[in-house]
Amino acid sequence: MTVSATLPSPPRHLPSRPLRIAILGATGAVGQELLVLLHERGFPVAELRPLASPRSAGQDLEWQGERLRVQPVGADAFEGIDLVLASAGGSVSRQWAPVATAAGAVVIDNSSAFRMDPAVPLVVPEVNPQAAFAHSGILANPNCTTILLTLALAPLAARRPIRRVVVSTYQSASGAGARAMEELRDLSRTVLDGGEPVSTVLPHSLAFNLFLHNSPLQPSGYCEEELKMLHETRKIMGLPDLRLTATCVRVPVLRAHSEAVNIEFEEPFPVMEARELLAAAPGVELIENFETNRFPMPTDVTGRDPVAVGRIRQDLSDPRALELWLCGDQIRKGAALNAIQIAELLRDPAAADAPAGGAV
Amino acid sequence: MTVSATLPSPPRHLPSRPLRIAILGATGAVGQELLVLLHERGFPVAELRPLASPRSAGQDLEWQGERLRVQPVGADAFEGIDLVLASAGGSVSRQWAPVATAAGAVVIDNSSAFRMDPAVPLVVPEVNPQAAFAHSGILANPNCTTILLTLALAPLAARRPIRRVVVSTYQSASGAGARAMEELRDLSRTVLDGGEPVSTVLPHSLAFNLFLHNSPLQPSGYCEEELKMLHETRKIMGLPDLRLTATCVRVPVLRAHSEAVNIEFEEPFPVMEARELLAAAPGVELIENFETNRFPMPTDVTGRDPVAVGRIRQDLSDPRALELWLCGDQIRKGAALNAIQIAELLRDPAAADAPAGGAV
Repeated sequence: MTVSATLPSPPRHLPSRPLRIAILGATGAVGQELLVLLHERGFPVAELRPLASPRSAGQDLEWQGERLRVQPVGADAFEGIDLVLASAGGSVSRQWAPVATAAGAVVIDNSSAFRMDPAVPLVVPEVNPQAAFAHSGILANPNCTTILLTLALAPLAARRPIRRVVVSTYQSASGAGARAMEELRDLSRTVLDGGEPVSTVLPHSLAFNLFLHNSPLQPSGYCEEELKMLHETRKIMGLPDLRLTATCVRVPVLRAHSEAVNIEFEEPFPVMEARELLAAAPGVELIENFETNRFPMPTDVTGRDPVAVGRIRQDLSDPRALELWLCGDQIRKGAALNAIQIAELLRDPAAADAPAGGAV
Repeated sequence: MTVSATLPSPPRHLPSRPLRIAILGATGAVGQELLVLLHERGFPVAELRPLASPRSAGQDLEWQGERLRVQPVGADAFEGIDLVLASAGGSVSRQWAPVATAAGAVVIDNSSAFRMDPAVPLVVPEVNPQAAFAHSGILANPNCTTILLTLALAPLAARRPIRRVVVSTYQSASGAGARAMEELRDLSRTVLDGGEPVSTVLPHSLAFNLFLHNSPLQPSGYCEEELKMLHETRKIMGLPDLRLTATCVRVPVLRAHSEAVNIEFEEPFPVMEARELLAAAPGVELIENFETNRFPMPTDVTGRDPVAVGRIRQDLSDPRALELWLCGDQIRKGAALNAIQIAELLRDPAAADAPAGGAV
């Protein structure tokens, strides 16, 4: 009998003791929100280690009354760490996630680096919580627009099969990072003062303007952001053949995304039934008052957790289709909150017992 | 033999001599643009008579170096007038358009008052020019979003039948008038200065925010703006059974509307063919560079005539569908320009000989 040396397999669950947590990309918009949420949600933290590229390292952050020095990410940066919350872009994650897992940490990665890797779970805790436990050290946090969309689609898909989805997005500047938000503010002031706005962060000025999402175009004519919505939604919902088309648009809003969603089902779906399902769905808040013409707006969800859904209506052009509208905070549920909810799930597997209808 | 008294039938064509023109609602955003366009296009004007509600009358306007006093609309206001360009809202049009036609004028009305009246032509000159000549004194200018949409749909529908359209709009503040544009500027400054924006013109602050179009909701759950798109598109294109669903959204842009349009055809429609048709379509400008990721934006069309179309692509979710994106100046082609083009058409019927595929 031979004994072969194997890499240690990381634990599937996170221990229930307070955790030693590294935040990779701590100085970005999502990194900052991770700090806020760890505090707000009383996440048990034994140590908090902010990491960033050498360019951003050296700054001090304050967290729960403590001053924390941002350290440069490097070969030894993950020593003793249980959990890495990574939000520093795809190339940083590709370089450092394997180092972190080799050091024994679990990585929850907010970049697109590993999302479509069949070995990496792509998780929205309200939708496919069971998927989280199949990880091998790395779990991926989906794209913001996809997270918001699946929260609305999953409860409906669990009742009646979806035939096709047509979605148009209204995406805030925050999706392009804190510097894009600042640029929107600055250039808006320029326009108000009668000046000519010149963008340096986004490809065009977003001040009182909007443009199709500027992620790289694929041969299909779709941009990467749109294809993320297609492929990630399929993976999260466990519907590899789902038909979905998206048009992604950047709008001059600071930090909440909106989506106009047309959903064709295989059979008619009574509006009242859809409304009841969505009102009861985890992570969803119904904002829908037909008397006062009041439906979700970005300002309703800014800095808040739930995805707001409303104006659910029978599509007049197709008896089997519904129309609905949703808004969600891009930095919170679209990124930082979802990552922390995945961590909470890995600490408390019992919470995963009631999925809303996603992939296991 | 008896002779019965009949009201004089207004001439179907406008005379080719310089016209005596009244602008009803001369002080509004569209009224102001009508003045600009009459000048820019060298429209032959014998007399220009700005009219407004008693509240707005008494102001002086300058036009081509002349000072014009805005007169209150009233029973005698249309004496000697050949053409009324009306843009003062539905109730004003309902009250005064019959008075103007009784005085012998032709009325081109920008409100929704008469659009769905079977006796009133609803005209986009590039789409259904022949329809204009069936008028009985009143012609209707379509809703802004509808005008922009039909310019893109008509050339395609003339080649292959449309099965269904799903459209999401990104509508500027100008659609709610000059005061809404001013409110967007004011409240944006308030937000930038750290204040709390409180709207008085629009139902919610549009500053770094957006909301579903606030026109009255119908029992179907659709708002009036969305149903205008359905019914007016059907009438203009001569497709009474066209299946179309719209979600109309007000965004913090000043004066250009955008639309994400998904078009299902009865059979596959090669993208290259659609692109060639749209590139050659009257009133349409293709802004489409897949190399540089450059497609239409509101700032491309602000203050300009054409509707910009781009990112025409094969819908990945349906082999018979195309996706496209368009932007157009709401005040110009969405309102004032289209009205003046109707007047130009009525002066020069020969221009109506090459419709792009709309209703006659």
